[in-house]
Amino acid sequence: MQSPLLTELVNALKILPSVGPKSAQRMAYYLLERNRQGAQKLADVLQESIEKIGHCERCRDLTEDPICHLCSSPSRNANELCVVESPSDVLAIEQSGIYRGLYFVLMGHLSPIDGIGPEEIGLPQLEQRLKEEGVEELILATNPTAEGEATAHYIQQMAQPLGIKVTRLAQGIPLGGELEYIDSGTLGQAFAGRK
Amino acid sequence: MQSPLLTELVNALKILPSVGPKSAQRMAYYLLERNRQGAQKLADVLQESIEKIGHCERCRDLTEDPICHLCSSPSRNANELCVVESPSDVLAIEQSGIYRGLYFVLMGHLSPIDGIGPEEIGLPQLEQRLKEEGVEELILATNPTAEGEATAHYIQQMAQPLGIKVTRLAQGIPLGGELEYIDSGTLGQAFAGRK
Repeated sequence: MQSPLLTELVNALKILPSVGPKSAQRMAYYLLERNRQGAQKLADVLQESIEKIGHCERCRDLTEDPICHLCSSPSRNANELCVVESPSDVLAIEQSGIYRGLYFVLMGHLSPIDGIGPEEIGLPQLEQRLKEEGVEELILATNPTAEGEATAHYIQQMAQPLGIKVTRLAQGIPLGGELEYIDSGTLGQAFAGRK
Repeated sequence: MQSPLLTELVNALKILPSVGPKSAQRMAYYLLERNRQGAQKLADVLQESIEKIGHCERCRDLTEDPICHLCSSPSRNANELCVVESPSDVLAIEQSGIYRGLYFVLMGHLSPIDGIGPEEIGLPQLEQRLKEEGVEELILATNPTAEGEATAHYIQQMAQPLGIKVTRLAQGIPLGGELEYIDSGTLGQAFAGRK
């Protein structure tokens, strides 16, 4: 129907999350018809990112440096360590501006069915860090899902013998939420945790 | 906040149509964390497309060949020429399977305010084609918008002295449409064109 190379471009764009055949088609036409400069920029930056962006040696976050700028910042409080599942969680917490400590990014959660065990999410590295560095508080900020809870539980068990204070993000009603629309699980947590 | 290169990648992805900051962020993380192979493929195909894909010399559609495969196909009826605004319109008409003639892609519509005149949408080239090739029917399939109608009117004026039959796509109620939800303009057209 259309040129083979254009079809290939549409297929390559379809791998992007929540981009279907129609959107991919629209993106391909947009890039080639209206914004070749932007397309060139995207191709270049994407190539450079693939080559240079790896994981921070300390926190496993995505970065093009050996140690990311958060880990190497002298203004962060090294006594607090916050464990999250993905780089986007770091971004969300940083945007809230509430936390000044360091991070450890699991890059996933424990999921034995998918072959993801403690090694795959860097827990030996985390344990060594807890032993060697003067971490006073370990904040478990994994997602409030079954896998996230299981992962948090596992890490808690690991940190307890080391005498480190382990905390978990508070659960309850989100700001601006209306009671009638909140699921019963969250409501149950909110009642149980009332103060 | 995050690594400069990652920020650059997010900004480069934001140029894609209907991709905002959150989606771009998600795409960047997805490409780097979960699908580097797909990311590499996208970077390569995008680069190749930018270098190779240009416009067909006959119909102005996007293609990597000098003459696109539709224009060079011997099985198409060269007596019919369908004028559309963009390559995606060609694709939509081809998918319907109803048309076996050739196309002419304007790559836009007349819009004097934006400095888009007859030259910019290839009308001299179209006129020459109408004069030199034995086109018997010119089908105006520009969009049913003010600009599309104006463009169609202009082309009709251009083709009339050449004695070519000029037609326009029928307007009315779309298949499966429900009367109560159809806008009054369309309903008016459907009434006026009843048969």
